Amino acid sequence: MFERPRIKHCKACGTAVVYRVPDDGDTRERAVCPACGTIHYENPLNVVGTVPVLGTRVLLCKRNIEPRWGKWTLPAGFMELGETTADGAARETVEEAGAQFKMGELFALMNVMRVGQVHLFYLAELQSDRFDPGHETIEARLFEEDEIPWDEIAFRTVREALRCFFEDRRAGRFQFHTLDIQ
Amino acid sequence: MFERPRIKHCKACGTAVVYRVPDDGDTRERAVCPACGTIHYENPLNVVGTVPVLGTRVLLCKRNIEPRWGKWTLPAGFMELGETTADGAARETVEEAGAQFKMGELFALMNVMRVGQVHLFYLAELQSDRFDPGHETIEARLFEEDEIPWDEIAFRTVREALRCFFEDRRAGRFQFHTLDIQ
Repeated sequence: MFERPRIKHCKACGTAVVYRVPDDGDTRERAVCPACGTIHYENPLNVVGTVPVLGTRVLLCKRNIEPRWGKWTLPAGFMELGETTADGAARETVEEAGAQFKMGELFALMNVMRVGQVHLFYLAELQSDRFDPGHETIEARLFEEDEIPWDEIAFRTVREALRCFFEDRRAGRFQFHTLDIQ
Repeated sequence: MFERPRIKHCKACGTAVVYRVPDDGDTRERAVCPACGTIHYENPLNVVGTVPVLGTRVLLCKRNIEPRWGKWTLPAGFMELGETTADGAARETVEEAGAQFKMGELFALMNVMRVGQVHLFYLAELQSDRFDPGHETIEARLFEEDEIPWDEIAFRTVREALRCFFEDRRAGRFQFHTLDIQ
């Protein structure tokens, strides 16, 4: 969902970094500070969200931010320090949809290697069809399966989570899914 | 598994950062650069590993690095950019144990909120009882359940993964586990 700018300066002392394999047995090139020796690690990030359900309908949010302004998404965003994956998924559902819901089980884990992200979706049971979306959302709306705007979905992982959800519902049982997105 | 040092300088231009809530609708304090405006996000990291099994025995590695030097662990480490969670778990199993194995299903996801980490363990089926551990490991060894050195296990998530594994084995079926570690 975003491109990472290259690290140019040391976060500890501000000196310009060099890219090399550290001397500690590491095998990867890192941004290393030639002054204070700080090694800057860059690692994948978790995106956490929900599949919020009310009866036979699923909640989608129309994005009011880039990227993919105006496209539909499940409530999801970057996991923060000080929260669990489920906490983060619930927080995003409040922030983006202003929904009232009960959190369910972890439903899908998807690797999006190209952008260094892992996406985690939980099932959530909506308690009401009234929403109060925040500034990141133009509109929060419930969709029956045959109303889903498949060509207007913001992200591949959202499309896959919806596809798994409807497949499982047809099969009469929800299971945990792991997928790698190319 | 590590403490994060506070960001003091901008990674883009080297200027000393200030901690404040950015003006973009964010609600959290971030390290913001007063010169170029770069916002520095800090997010939880994924630790990926395996529960490597040969018949009735599980492979543990005696740590040759801090923290917890000399304690026993499952092969695991920080997920890197350019790999999936399963790729990372397999890489750590090669690096720390030099094991030959077939990767299995995702077995456990554990939130370790206190240190901003999510630990993911996959099942792995060992193909041989010969190991060639790297520099991070003093010894790689197979343990029957009643031989597991429970008081000498390096990390709480490793203990929980082993506990779930042996419980599931007794129950005759392996399922996916989610846990929050305090």
